Amino acid sequence: MSDMCNVALLGQKFMGRAHSNAYLKAGRFFNLPKTPVRHTIVGLDLIALAPFADRWGWRNYSTNWKEVVKQSEIDLVDVSTPNCMHAEQALAALAAGKHVACEKPLAHTLKDARAMKNAAGRARRSKTFVWFNYRRCPAVALAHRLVQEGRLGRIYHVRAKYLQSWGKPETPLVWRFQKKYAGTGAHGDLNAHIIDMARFITGHEISEVTGAIAETFITERPLPAGAARDSISGGGRRKKNVSTGKSDVDDCVLFLARFKNGAVGTFEATRLATGNLNNNSIEINGEHGSIRFGFEDMNLLWFFDNNDDKATAGWRRIMCTSAGNHPYAGAWWPDAHIIGYEHTFVNMVADMMAVLAGEEPTVPLPNFADAYETQRVLEAAMLAAKHRAAVKLSEVK
Amino acid sequence: MSDMCNVALLGQKFMGRAHSNAYLKAGRFFNLPKTPVRHTIVGLDLIALAPFADRWGWRNYSTNWKEVVKQSEIDLVDVSTPNCMHAEQALAALAAGKHVACEKPLAHTLKDARAMKNAAGRARRSKTFVWFNYRRCPAVALAHRLVQEGRLGRIYHVRAKYLQSWGKPETPLVWRFQKKYAGTGAHGDLNAHIIDMARFITGHEISEVTGAIAETFITERPLPAGAARDSISGGGRRKKNVSTGKSDVDDCVLFLARFKNGAVGTFEATRLATGNLNNNSIEINGEHGSIRFGFEDMNLLWFFDNNDDKATAGWRRIMCTSAGNHPYAGAWWPDAHIIGYEHTFVNMVADMMAVLAGEEPTVPLPNFADAYETQRVLEAAMLAAKHRAAVKLSEVK
Amino acid sequence: MSDMCNVALLGQKFMGRAHSNAYLKAGRFFNLPKTPVRHTIVGLDLIALAPFADRWGWRNYSTNWKEVVKQSEIDLVDVSTPNCMHAEQALAALAAGKHVACEKPLAHTLKDARAMKNAAGRARRSKTFVWFNYRRCPAVALAHRLVQEGRLGRIYHVRAKYLQSWGKPETPLVWRFQKKYAGTGAHGDLNAHIIDMARFITGHEISEVTGAIAETFITERPLPAGAARDSISGGGRRKKNVSTGKSDVDDCVLFLARFKNGAVGTFEATRLATGNLNNNSIEINGEHGSIRFGFEDMNLLWFFDNNDDKATAGWRRIMCTSAGNHPYAGAWWPDAHIIGYEHTFVNMVADMMAVLAGEEPTVPLPNFADAYETQRVLEAAMLAAKHRAAVKLSEVK
Amino acid sequence: MSDMCNVALLGQKFMGRAHSNAYLKAGRFFNLPKTPVRHTIVGLDLIALAPFADRWGWRNYSTNWKEVVKQSEIDLVDVSTPNCMHAEQALAALAAGKHVACEKPLAHTLKDARAMKNAAGRARRSKTFVWFNYRRCPAVALAHRLVQEGRLGRIYHVRAKYLQSWGKPETPLVWRFQKKYAGTGAHGDLNAHIIDMARFITGHEISEVTGAIAETFITERPLPAGAARDSISGGGRRKKNVSTGKSDVDDCVLFLARFKNGAVGTFEATRLATGNLNNNSIEINGEHGSIRFGFEDMNLLWFFDNNDDKATAGWRRIMCTSAGNHPYAGAWWPDAHIIGYEHTFVNMVADMMAVLAGEEPTVPLPNFADAYETQRVLEAAMLAAKHRAAVKLSEVK
Repeated sequence: MSDMCNVALLGQKFMGRAHSNAYLKAGRFFNLPKTPVRHTIVGLDLIALAPFADRWGWRNYSTNWKEVVKQSEIDLVDVSTPNCMHAEQALAALAAGKHVACEKPLAHTLKDARAMKNAAGRARRSKTFVWFNYRRCPAVALAHRLVQEGRLGRIYHVRAKYLQSWGKPETPLVWRFQKKYAGTGAHGDLNAHIIDMARFITGHEISEVTGAIAETFITERPLPAGAARDSISGGGRRKKNVSTGKSDVDDCVLFLARFKNGAVGTFEATRLATGNLNNNSIEINGEHGSIRFGFEDMNLLWFFDNNDDKATAGWRRIMCTSAGNHPYAGAWWPDAHIIGYEHTFVNMVADMMAVLAGEEPTVPLPNFADAYETQRVLEAAMLAAKHRAAVKLSEVK
Repeated sequence: MSDMCNVALLGQKFMGRAHSNAYLKAGRFFNLPKTPVRHTIVGLDLIALAPFADRWGWRNYSTNWKEVVKQSEIDLVDVSTPNCMHAEQALAALAAGKHVACEKPLAHTLKDARAMKNAAGRARRSKTFVWFNYRRCPAVALAHRLVQEGRLGRIYHVRAKYLQSWGKPETPLVWRFQKKYAGTGAHGDLNAHIIDMARFITGHEISEVTGAIAETFITERPLPAGAARDSISGGGRRKKNVSTGKSDVDDCVLFLARFKNGAVGTFEATRLATGNLNNNSIEINGEHGSIRFGFEDMNLLWFFDNNDDKATAGWRRIMCTSAGNHPYAGAWWPDAHIIGYEHTFVNMVADMMAVLAGEEPTVPLPNFADAYETQRVLEAAMLAAKHRAAVKLSEVK
Repeated sequence: MSDMCNVALLGQKFMGRAHSNAYLKAGRFFNLPKTPVRHTIVGLDLIALAPFADRWGWRNYSTNWKEVVKQSEIDLVDVSTPNCMHAEQALAALAAGKHVACEKPLAHTLKDARAMKNAAGRARRSKTFVWFNYRRCPAVALAHRLVQEGRLGRIYHVRAKYLQSWGKPETPLVWRFQKKYAGTGAHGDLNAHIIDMARFITGHEISEVTGAIAETFITERPLPAGAARDSISGGGRRKKNVSTGKSDVDDCVLFLARFKNGAVGTFEATRLATGNLNNNSIEINGEHGSIRFGFEDMNLLWFFDNNDDKATAGWRRIMCTSAGNHPYAGAWWPDAHIIGYEHTFVNMVADMMAVLAGEEPTVPLPNFADAYETQRVLEAAMLAAKHRAAVKLSEVK
Repeated sequence: MSDMCNVALLGQKFMGRAHSNAYLKAGRFFNLPKTPVRHTIVGLDLIALAPFADRWGWRNYSTNWKEVVKQSEIDLVDVSTPNCMHAEQALAALAAGKHVACEKPLAHTLKDARAMKNAAGRARRSKTFVWFNYRRCPAVALAHRLVQEGRLGRIYHVRAKYLQSWGKPETPLVWRFQKKYAGTGAHGDLNAHIIDMARFITGHEISEVTGAIAETFITERPLPAGAARDSISGGGRRKKNVSTGKSDVDDCVLFLARFKNGAVGTFEATRLATGNLNNNSIEINGEHGSIRFGFEDMNLLWFFDNNDDKATAGWRRIMCTSAGNHPYAGAWWPDAHIIGYEHTFVNMVADMMAVLAGEEPTVPLPNFADAYETQRVLEAAMLAAKHRAAVKLSEVK
């Protein structure tokens, strides 16, 4: 087995940049059993592609993803394109015998997601990964461990929200506001993360979405500057003197859920929570303890231990930066020399390389089958919103 | 019109004490147009009653509420008994021509609440009040004003929760865990507060409960020490060697709501949120701004003004203690010499006296008709939980 | 021994009100072995005095403190006048055989303070108290206990500050800005509190002020409206067309200190810390743990336990409201139904009554001898500021 | 002028790693006018050097710094060795006509620092930089700008502290505890940072250290494992059966300062503030506003604007991540996708490259002359501690 892993990265925008940086840094900070090689970057925008490849050290670039995913040199295909393209690209890569890392949510539709899960199940020699990067915040990984160790006991409550505020009325109609490209709005973009996080930390599956609301507050949006065609980079159908287009995805989705163990939970994702920039938060209450996490203070985990003596019990502000004591901390900087958003991706690359080398990741990595469970919850929530009634997960397949 | 207001207070427990203190203090800190007189305290426990009256300066005490509410000297009857007794007592007081202040939730059942609302509507000379005391946190009153002034603009989101943790498995079966006395558990006790707060701050009514979960995690509880009878102070049916009894109220109720203006909201009340002692919190997001309030830091209001210039925009931590600038602050202590829980009741007494004297309260006071709207939402949530489907408020009357 | 304690309160302004409220409430919330009776209120302003007495339930009022402190009915004289009057009044009360409670700082000058301490030492039948009310925040009392129990181990650092911001340039020249009435500015008003708090929590005396700065940023201030004479309520010498007067007290005093046990500390008091309203904060670091307290969140104590396992160690946010577990909490409201500024005075009255009845206070009460030690530190700091050099406490007597 | 900048980095430990990462990343995130080339890494430990060079992409490595700093290919010498070596290496690099970036504090002694400043002054073609990296936290840079724009007005107070806790009794005697290598302890390591930060944000120089305390709490420390000789990596003089050695640097230094504009300040650095891991904090109070910064929440700046209307004035929590609105933010990730410790170094490399290309840095970069002013304050504080008296900066040259 080679100790190199040649990566083909599909996508050169926000995630293309985040992943490139992760491949660049992982080997510097971790002692990797397998080294990711920035082999080929694939994008649609040829003009931007060469400088991108140069900047990030990709050895090759291409606009033809279909060819690239079949190249014999490629070991891992990283699908970081808009949601609507995940399935086709991932299936092709699996068919070519590659390992696949796919951005979240797994797919545009549940049907696509199922196809991906099934293909992954059949592709025995391929590993699959889904970029639920927030699992790899040290604080989230620690929360997962505390639950596993029984520090929370029986879990009663999950309270998860992912609040942003960039979707204000004046924000242009980029692809993320169009169903045909994005599938959903805040739901797939943000709820996907917190559903995964809840499942990951608690170790419990959701059994029912008991109620849901999906709402589009802003239905008409200005067309982006220079949007000349109905395209993924522009948006909106071109008509004479038309300066706005229709936003047909949710601005927010809220839902209530029951877990198989009996716990109950609230989930909320929105792009219109004024004042909340990237407020990805979760609180979990158990009989013996509770945890709280908020991404904007991502180096911290708050932990309440019900076993502390009453006089000094209190939420503990744990700075999760202690090498040897906190997941991933040993790879980075001295205590409380904090890390940020990008480090979650680097930590994930390190874990993917571990898995590809036959080792254990620091904490479990989501594969397609795992992400499919999250996709089912996303689907159940949309159904519950549509029918204004509870939907059992057993009915969503 | 006399400048005295003779009060008969029914109830000598937690709320009896909170209200007694409020009547004691209001005239010391506010210049009242009408002075509350601690005329008669009414309770069931005669042994405790005399010392209670003495301690709090009640001129008379009685175990016979039916007589007291009819006494000609009494101006205001304050109903602070368990929920199941509200209706009978309030109706009797109204029938006797008294003003009535009733603890929340308005009643045990929607039917009772409706009867109370209707009786109040007919009793033209009586004023009614409901002790939604959290409206009178200066920070909550300020939030109400900011919304009224348009500082939040169109409201998109309400996020309310009232989290406590005293309902752990070992907590005895007090009356609050028994349906016949309490009606509901966390729902009527805690959700009542946050529904009122959401309605009060936003000025919008809820039009639909789109989904709800009611859950009793702990169904068997130890009987309280000395619980010898099926009584409101003890609890549980007595059997030989039986040391536990059945808790038949909700430990938590979560629901999703739509408001008439189009806003959406989440509500959650629980007694099992380990680590949360009295976490009564609300966040409201509007197009032009947002507010956040949490009772455990009740002197603070957090406000985000979307009109601030981008370089210095941020959540503002407003210490609501500035005389002349913040509601109620002028009555109390110098800036940031903070107030606490009990002051919300004192502020409410001051406002009730203002209303009884024909003046305006600092911010609107809830009467029976107003509290009935909250009760309808409570009912809708229980129905939605039962039917696992959306319930329109128009169907709940 | 009577179970009543007749109080004569000298002073009817801010502290007169705070103390009146404390005497009013103490017996309602605590089971007192001795009941404070609001016997006589003494003030200079006869017009305000009668309504004040009426409002707060003082049985008598007088403008002649010299007579009142000698009245045989009086048990406790409470000196809540400006600093310059403390000594004369307290000495007269002690000479008359009364117990004396004096506001802080103990006196205008060290000489006066010494006289008070000595008189108190000779007056064997009199108890003395000084209103360092912040000791009676439950969180501060808990901090004291934790240190006593050895939870902090050897103490290295004390970091205390009391930051206010009302002393801005446009604030009028009230008596607090004039040396002849106030003695000092922020120093005696604010540093007195934090010196006491540091001594109280650590149990260690200060042995040296190693350096100090006293600064008057604003030397000319507008005269208060209606200030016609050089009086304690007005201020400034009257001249033709003079609209400002000279502020001759410090706006801030900062100093460094060494403690007898070897710990080192910083102290800072100011009236010009824009944005800080009543930020009275202390942090203490020991070998085994640390505590943090800030008055604006006075219900909280933050505690770091160095013995916690590394993975879950963190500052604990302790809500000090648990009956049975936290000092004073049992007298008040349910957990996290927070208390405020005024409760510190009520707690102190309860403890004073305990001491007068021969019982133990919840935590130690400062008497004149104790407050004299704080006064010596205040003096040492002023000397160090003046001489721009270290001053040993052994040199300040 | 080449658009490449060949760097020779001296030092391969903590700072060697932080700087390597910065050179690696800067060109990926910024559009640099000049590209740093990782040309040669220099270290003492040959065994570690080759893998380090390989890991970080240094083209060459060497143990002979004297040769390297003279190589014609080298443009910039980065001195990241222990403090005692700064002067010799920086002087040699300047003598060879190189640009020099030196870690802080500038030097081991004031004399060395002065020599460096003077040499830099003479070397007209060389640029010098000092790694006061915290200036390049976006929040700190924003604070600097707000002061420059007059948003704080006349500055009254500076309150700076840098609190760590790793210096506990059981921590071994590494070089940082030995005077001959480190010069000072917490003082040069931590106070250097906050002195620079205070000077940078306020724009004012310190005119006097009015008092200071330097304390070594732990004077004997265990020798590091494998410490066989009196060496920089080990420590302690070898004697038979000796397992501890003498720590002869300060564990903490506290001082009071006056600024030329009349402001006053407190400074404190310690390695024994239990519970504080990397608490590098500053608060500055001015007539019109105040700012607060704490490194552990480095993406945030707190700002209080005294011009806000009183009803809604409050400390603003500014998330300094808004591209176009906050310094450096445009180079990184979307709003509130936070950055961490390492980014301060990357931002600094970007600014150094700008300066070397003749452009303006985002905010001013400290050169040797600037860092010399910080060094004078460090010296003044040590003198004040020694003499237990005030020291004017004019006396320290």
